[in-house]
Amino acid sequence: MTAQDARHPLAALDETVHQRARLGILAILNETKEADFSHLKQALGLTDGNLGRHLEVLVEAGHVTLRKRSDGRRNRTWVRITAQGRRALRSEVELLRQLLLTTER
Amino acid sequence: MTAQDARHPLAALDETVHQRARLGILAILNETKEADFSHLKQALGLTDGNLGRHLEVLVEAGHVTLRKRSDGRRNRTWVRITAQGRRALRSEVELLRQLLLTTER
Repeated sequence: MTAQDARHPLAALDETVHQRARLGILAILNETKEADFSHLKQALGLTDGNLGRHLEVLVEAGHVTLRKRSDGRRNRTWVRITAQGRRALRSEVELLRQLLLTTER
Repeated sequence: MTAQDARHPLAALDETVHQRARLGILAILNETKEADFSHLKQALGLTDGNLGRHLEVLVEAGHVTLRKRSDGRRNRTWVRITAQGRRALRSEVELLRQLLLTTER
């Protein structure tokens, strides 16, 4: 590490995206068109309250949008990643890629 | 995602290692034999208090060890990654690798 580049790349990680549950949410949404609340909850092993809070953070950051939709029997909350959310995930993955390179040496 | 494998791989991330500052500490220590407190602080942009707390978590988990050593003028705290810490970092990187694969599709 030189004096010109004293900061480690990981210092630039964005906690909004890096935090485990939120990274999981974004990764799942990046793979699928959209996912509903129950699916995310089960896939990431979160409680209602936990998932709700993390989604709030992601909505406020503009990374996901929520939509309530009835499937006849009940209302379901569908979550979708935004273009900005995809960009944020890509930045995170790029930083993680640098980590992988250094740990493989 | 099949019913047999309902959990997303990222659900298995260990917060002890995944948390941004701690991941940075382990990544730096994995690259160098050992690093002193000031170097870690500067490289990761942390305050004394913050770095101290994260090191405490890592020491308690058995991922790093601390050693105080005088360089003549002052005492410096040197931090070193343990074999267990390297294994934990490798597990984290393996999970992140799966994330990278899915986001590249």
